[in-house]
Amino acid sequence: MISEQIDLSLAKEAVDTIRLLAADAVEQAQSGHPGTPMEAAPIAYLLYSRHLRHAPQQPDWPGRDRFILSCGHASALLYSLLHLTGYDLSLEEIKAFRQFDSRTPGHPEFGHTPGVETTTGPLGQGFAVGVGMAMGARFLKEQVDQELFDYRIYSLCSDGDLMEGVAAEAASLAGHLRLGNLVYLYLDNHITIEGDTALAFSEETATRFLAYGWQVLRVEGENLEEIDGAIACAKEDPRPSLIIARTHIGQGAPNKQDSSAAHGAPLGREELRLTKQALGRNPEQSFEVPKQVSEHMFAAVERGESLVREWQQKFESRQDDARSATWHQLAGKGLSDGWQQYLPVFDTDSGPMATRKASGLVLNALAPHLPLLLGGSADLAPSNNTALQNETAFRPGASGRNIHFGVREHAMGAILNGLAHTPGLIPYGGTFLIFSDYMRPPIRLAAMMGLAPIYVFTHDSIGLGEDGPTHQPVEQLAALRAIPELRVIRPADANETAMAWRVALAERQRPTALALSRQNLPVVDRKTHGAAEGVARGGYVLAAEEGLLQALLIASGSEVSLVLAAREILQQQGIATRVVSLPCWELFDEQSQDYRHEVLPPTCPARLAVEAAAAFGWERYVGDRGDILAMDGFGASAPADQLMEYFGFTVDQVIARVRQLIEKN
Amino acid sequence: MISEQIDLSLAKEAVDTIRLLAADAVEQAQSGHPGTPMEAAPIAYLLYSRHLRHAPQQPDWPGRDRFILSCGHASALLYSLLHLTGYDLSLEEIKAFRQFDSRTPGHPEFGHTPGVETTTGPLGQGFAVGVGMAMGARFLKEQVDQELFDYRIYSLCSDGDLMEGVAAEAASLAGHLRLGNLVYLYLDNHITIEGDTALAFSEETATRFLAYGWQVLRVEGENLEEIDGAIACAKEDPRPSLIIARTHIGQGAPNKQDSSAAHGAPLGREELRLTKQALGRNPEQSFEVPKQVSEHMFAAVERGESLVREWQQKFESRQDDARSATWHQLAGKGLSDGWQQYLPVFDTDSGPMATRKASGLVLNALAPHLPLLLGGSADLAPSNNTALQNETAFRPGASGRNIHFGVREHAMGAILNGLAHTPGLIPYGGTFLIFSDYMRPPIRLAAMMGLAPIYVFTHDSIGLGEDGPTHQPVEQLAALRAIPELRVIRPADANETAMAWRVALAERQRPTALALSRQNLPVVDRKTHGAAEGVARGGYVLAAEEGLLQALLIASGSEVSLVLAAREILQQQGIATRVVSLPCWELFDEQSQDYRHEVLPPTCPARLAVEAAAAFGWERYVGDRGDILAMDGFGASAPADQLMEYFGFTVDQVIARVRQLIEKN
Repeated sequence: MISEQIDLSLAKEAVDTIRLLAADAVEQAQSGHPGTPMEAAPIAYLLYSRHLRHAPQQPDWPGRDRFILSCGHASALLYSLLHLTGYDLSLEEIKAFRQFDSRTPGHPEFGHTPGVETTTGPLGQGFAVGVGMAMGARFLKEQVDQELFDYRIYSLCSDGDLMEGVAAEAASLAGHLRLGNLVYLYLDNHITIEGDTALAFSEETATRFLAYGWQVLRVEGENLEEIDGAIACAKEDPRPSLIIARTHIGQGAPNKQDSSAAHGAPLGREELRLTKQALGRNPEQSFEVPKQVSEHMFAAVERGESLVREWQQKFESRQDDARSATWHQLAGKGLSDGWQQYLPVFDTDSGPMATRKASGLVLNALAPHLPLLLGGSADLAPSNNTALQNETAFRPGASGRNIHFGVREHAMGAILNGLAHTPGLIPYGGTFLIFSDYMRPPIRLAAMMGLAPIYVFTHDSIGLGEDGPTHQPVEQLAALRAIPELRVIRPADANETAMAWRVALAERQRPTALALSRQNLPVVDRKTHGAAEGVARGGYVLAAEEGLLQALLIASGSEVSLVLAAREILQQQGIATRVVSLPCWELFDEQSQDYRHEVLPPTCPARLAVEAAAAFGWERYVGDRGDILAMDGFGASAPADQLMEYFGFTVDQVIARVRQLIEKN
Repeated sequence: MISEQIDLSLAKEAVDTIRLLAADAVEQAQSGHPGTPMEAAPIAYLLYSRHLRHAPQQPDWPGRDRFILSCGHASALLYSLLHLTGYDLSLEEIKAFRQFDSRTPGHPEFGHTPGVETTTGPLGQGFAVGVGMAMGARFLKEQVDQELFDYRIYSLCSDGDLMEGVAAEAASLAGHLRLGNLVYLYLDNHITIEGDTALAFSEETATRFLAYGWQVLRVEGENLEEIDGAIACAKEDPRPSLIIARTHIGQGAPNKQDSSAAHGAPLGREELRLTKQALGRNPEQSFEVPKQVSEHMFAAVERGESLVREWQQKFESRQDDARSATWHQLAGKGLSDGWQQYLPVFDTDSGPMATRKASGLVLNALAPHLPLLLGGSADLAPSNNTALQNETAFRPGASGRNIHFGVREHAMGAILNGLAHTPGLIPYGGTFLIFSDYMRPPIRLAAMMGLAPIYVFTHDSIGLGEDGPTHQPVEQLAALRAIPELRVIRPADANETAMAWRVALAERQRPTALALSRQNLPVVDRKTHGAAEGVARGGYVLAAEEGLLQALLIASGSEVSLVLAAREILQQQGIATRVVSLPCWELFDEQSQDYRHEVLPPTCPARLAVEAAAAFGWERYVGDRGDILAMDGFGASAPADQLMEYFGFTVDQVIARVRQLIEKN
């Protein structure tokens, strides 16, 4: 966008200002990472002042380019840039780096600081989230409007990012999809925390990325014109680009440059003084921003305003375009009214049905009415039932709604975050529940950021049968339930599955994990049982007791039909038993105490929880005098029915345990 | 080892026998994966009959080559080979494929079937475990004996393995370390579950592996001489080798070859008949093993016996060699007696000390006495305190005890499993506790296999301070505690840390995760408090109440000193309060009910658990009438003291909560 020559003298001043602001911030905090901001300052300067199409005072402008600091520990760099280019981040905030309640936390946090596009810190995540953002941009560009969404994703990455497997997975997919809107800059500084990168990292990174189908360029990290040219070249190439910049950690610090000592601790007062001296600055002054630098960098505000105006005009000229109107509505107000009417209702005539199958039917019933819903599976679509029947694949030049993530669960998780960052999109991704273990870091980040991807986790217990213990989740439900802000829903039948999707889609500020069965489950007769709408409250009375309540059976998912069958017999035996379906702990715990006590009356201590998973955490609902029928170790390989029998998930066992409880209580 | 020409006609018969045994097994089970065994049969045949130095009837012979079926879903292939080459796996077991209590589960399980070297199924794990095994072999070879441990690791991998990030991480490290003892064969069949691999995987895999520093060879998957030559070539190269075999899934099945229909379901009776016909076999016969094939393959037994004899003689000739004697003892009986005496004891004079620091001191005090203890960190050694001070790095040509895993947590986890599979070795690996999320799949597999790596997870709570929520574990303790068979120990001070290491080292059949503080913690005065030996029982009375017990304070790790301080004041206020340190739930739950009731008397309902982590699961110990002071969301970026204050981990808050509990109860 800017073809004019770089004013090298002004640029040097700006670069050094960025460098020193970051080093001063770390010094003031007595905590943080000065080395990477110092080495990356030239690149960052060029991006923010010459390449990034951004609007500092409208940081949410949908048409902006996105910048991701994948090496999130270099946060002081980003804060310096945001401050200098006119984002709502004062110098006081820079001075409060890493302090309580500041806008300048240790690692960049989405939603916390204007201009921070995604939360980074855990290495590799930013890299992979960017791939998701690039897919989102591509999707909007091709499916909604070629001009409005012609934006790019820039990212700054460190050695650590490139060593992480999640980045490798994402890079392979990005090359495959020819995401030419990706421009990544890799800080090749030869230093890691333990010392020289050569201790553990001697691969030819350039060759690796060429193998993935990327364009690879090399520059010297201090050569502004070279970097500028490479970025310009990257912007034009139809492939994703990796610009490898040979940089020097702690650049400018006379005694700490090129040493891991510059990585994760303040330079120290004396070294910082010497650095300022070496850069020709006043060694006694901190947080210094020369006036000409300030004016020069702040010009981003005006440029941004004009970009937004231009975009806005284009957008308004599309008023009659149905696709942009739909996008506008979805990006702004969320789901269109009335989508819920398309949720299928399953009756008992449909016969037993796996909840994974019901999920696929629900998804396909809703998809035509939710045009920005897109997703796929980590190569298990036929098992996860995640494919949208009348939609095309997301591939180069044809950004369809069916994404083939490949056998890359971890990257899928991060890419879903990138898609969820894209205004209007509702992304989902599927794999077996057991492989949620491969993608916990991005699930956690989604929860932390308030993003709302939907995870379709099928094959949710030993009920998957012969594949055996490597594929049978045991502790995964507990491990997911333990993540703050994440909702885990394990529906009991087809209708609860429809409700689970309804809840997940309606919730646009939290991620939801669906745990679905491989095996068929009876469709509960809702005429004689509690309505599936109870899913929205997390737990509800599915079958009331007949007589004075003596026992409570609490279950989720596939074990609900088991306890319903046991209840029949218990009632015949004269034991008044209630069945509570508890598909979602998080939603249930949010209900009023009145409601929770109504469902699980405190007066009934004979409570048996039944779930074909680890017992971990169920004490919360069964209390001191209750019992838990659960898995106390790993599963085994055999047909599912035999496993259920062997591990005690039988009507007889449930009845025996209830009778024991009643005797004991 | 075998230079003679391949008898192509006999080989074809053997290959087809393997192919059909696997297809018959899947058909019989009506469940499983026939396609990959069918395509991989020629490679597998060559490995097991010509290259692998193995002893089917002494499957634990330490000098054997190891074979890993990284694509574990092709288990029927492995079982067919094990059966034919004379392992203790009868044809009846093949017929009982995927059935309850058989030795032929859906995916290969270590410890369950003789000849299965590691549990596989979750893709990428076998690939990375093999890298750990190769490092283990290299270590034994260079540190113990050049000849006795000159063995190789072979593995068969699928597209899925190569798409997984964990394999990418491990491959990069294997190339860096020049693990020439790795011979991997990749089944390039162009088919994944969702269809053609070109849907999601178009990278140049060969180039990628060249970039990692591997030798790469290409063969046709049906050309026995070509494959044989490539394996021979791979064995001689000083680099790890990847042999890319162009194979055809379901090879030999007339209508299903080259189709994803051959992947995960039985061929079907008719297709299986047609396959047998096409291969010139009797279409009506199942599980057919021609006599000449049986004799030919069974020759492995005799060859194996002679290999073992030769090895045994060499081993006996080393009787005076101290290093082999040490190895022998460690590999056989485990730790030498008396190592415990080197455990340091910390007194209160040492002043407050982070448990991560104590851990480093313990490790370094023990290391000289445990010569086969080795490990490192995923590039956080200076923070994890995992470096052994007087030991060298593990690098090409110098297999020292300090491993630089690079920023590759997931591969580290799998490599630790490979090292743990190596007789005699005790591996450990460190990272921040938050990044345990990156390595859950191999942790789970270690737990399932009964391996005993030790995880050194430091920075275990918001107590790490300024790095903020992306780095602050909240749900990680619960998520780890939920894994069956894994022990999680969160020591309260330096002496509990020493005991935690003692427990972890003594336990050679389960993995242990240590959760350690970044921040300093007071060293508890053991003269006036319960002995740190209590760690071995999981929980113990650290400070007894003075007077008739009114309240129980239960805590782990850094919160123990907090509750001790609160107890002082409560006692002064006349409230008889006991402090229980509960560093390890799993060990405590294993104790007798008497002991557990002695520590946590059921008569005292006023129980407060305090842990700077998710409350999830603590209900088990506090009961219906207790309370939990914990994190109910993510952390924040600020100095640690301020965070502890903000999130309520203060003496005042503990006292207030105890007083409330006493009033309520």
